[in-house]
Amino acid sequence: MPFHRIHIEREGCALQAALEVVGERWSFLILRAALMGVEHFEDFQCSLGIARNVLSGRLARLVDHGLLTREPVAEDKRMVAYRLTEKGRDLLPAIVALRQWGEKWAGLGTTVGPCLADRRDQLPVRPLTLLAQDGRALSPADLCWISDPVTPDDAAT
Amino acid sequence: MPFHRIHIEREGCALQAALEVVGERWSFLILRAALMGVEHFEDFQCSLGIARNVLSGRLARLVDHGLLTREPVAEDKRMVAYRLTEKGRDLLPAIVALRQWGEKWAGLGTTVGPCLADRRDQLPVRPLTLLAQDGRALSPADLCWISDPVTPDDAAT
Repeated sequence: MPFHRIHIEREGCALQAALEVVGERWSFLILRAALMGVEHFEDFQCSLGIARNVLSGRLARLVDHGLLTREPVAEDKRMVAYRLTEKGRDLLPAIVALRQWGEKWAGLGTTVGPCLADRRDQLPVRPLTLLAQDGRALSPADLCWISDPVTPDDAAT
Repeated sequence: MPFHRIHIEREGCALQAALEVVGERWSFLILRAALMGVEHFEDFQCSLGIARNVLSGRLARLVDHGLLTREPVAEDKRMVAYRLTEKGRDLLPAIVALRQWGEKWAGLGTTVGPCLADRRDQLPVRPLTLLAQDGRALSPADLCWISDPVTPDDAAT
């Protein structure tokens, strides 16, 4: 990518907005546990080894931001289940991209822990890469920053 | 995804390793600025509006972790340029995935700020989605967690 001395917007940036909600280590790990099917406070607590007061605060924040819902469990009214909303589930590519980066670069050797796979053939998902609108994989050298994006619809007309 | 009461590994997890390095709001924003071509301390400082001591600490940490290099500028020996390594550039999919999530869900309306595009046709990159080994897009319902991954090579034999 060439050098661009672009003024980076501080207000209204979507990356900043995303980081406001999930840019915190525990929030990310709680969401990953929720993506793996964890629903109950006790299960989050013992699978993550997180302090109860920290967990409680982070869960409340994720509910406030609409990433998790807090629902009573039908079989046991004293229990509560935290379930991902569509907004929460939509973070999966970001979580997988960070994990794949960690696998490649953190020097941990072989992958530890469960891996996300295609239900049909049990093969792990592909490494996430940036793709052009026509599906070509894009390397950093193929990329540029544009300030006024052409939408694919505009380009077709 | 079905309910799995999987014990989540606390040690040696690649997502945790990634979050140790970049799981902090300023580090992410510094890396994004570097991906846009920002190289000098003063430019990071004024484009991000970050306190100088915080910026200094975060840059040193990113250099220590091998995401940025710190190089003297040939034309002016008093100046230093922070440049992304391959390890740093490899975070691009994770940063783009988070930004795309923010664009979709943060309720900011239209995208603000420069957008990453294909140099060939100036069209924005595709939304990042999880793909199967054969290239199919995978929805959450198509996914499962496996503890002992089959590699694509194993499957072919």
